Amino acid sequence: MLEKTNQVNLLFDFYAPLLKGKQREYLELYYLDDLSLGEIAEMHEVSRQAVYDHIKRAEKQLFEYEDKLRLSARHEQRQALLARMQKIAEGLADEKAREDLTTLLHQLSEMD
Amino acid sequence: MLEKTNQVNLLFDFYAPLLKGKQREYLELYYLDDLSLGEIAEMHEVSRQAVYDHIKRAEKQLFEYEDKLRLSARHEQRQALLARMQKIAEGLADEKAREDLTTLLHQLSEMD
Repeated sequence: MLEKTNQVNLLFDFYAPLLKGKQREYLELYYLDDLSLGEIAEMHEVSRQAVYDHIKRAEKQLFEYEDKLRLSARHEQRQALLARMQKIAEGLADEKAREDLTTLLHQLSEMD
Repeated sequence: MLEKTNQVNLLFDFYAPLLKGKQREYLELYYLDDLSLGEIAEMHEVSRQAVYDHIKRAEKQLFEYEDKLRLSARHEQRQALLARMQKIAEGLADEKAREDLTTLLHQLSEMD
């Protein structure tokens, strides 16, 4: 369950803007804010089943988006390459190059 | 028109997997294979209007995806940062570091 939570959280980071209103909202409350189905149902004055259905559909969508676009997988790969470059950069005798590369690597890593 | 074509082609590279059957198919024939609406209509035995509607909807979707995920814009930014790093790498006296960084930069650039 924890692994599933982590996966959903990660995918949510990439694909949240593609989710529709209620799906996004309930998923966020459930996974990110850690509310229970019952709490969300009460909050929104809907049935627990309705909340559950929206969340299940949203989860499914996130995994489908990842199957199609692979943003999360590519993010991982990119971060691994950036880490290798950072190691090389740190070993450079040329101080200016070392600093400039580190700055650019940081920018790349942040925007991913 | 040429600019529009370029934009659509670019966005298609990023978001094609999210487009649904006919939308993706007609858009590809129209923009990538450069067929006319009439030719696509004839090929698929549908009206020219139907082809036009699918293509317009697909275009709209591509721009909406870009508004939401900004994959194309972020790709541009990343490529600019990679180009700056490549310049620094080329100027390094340390041959091994230069080659290793160039290889990694190439990998990063390719996977984007």
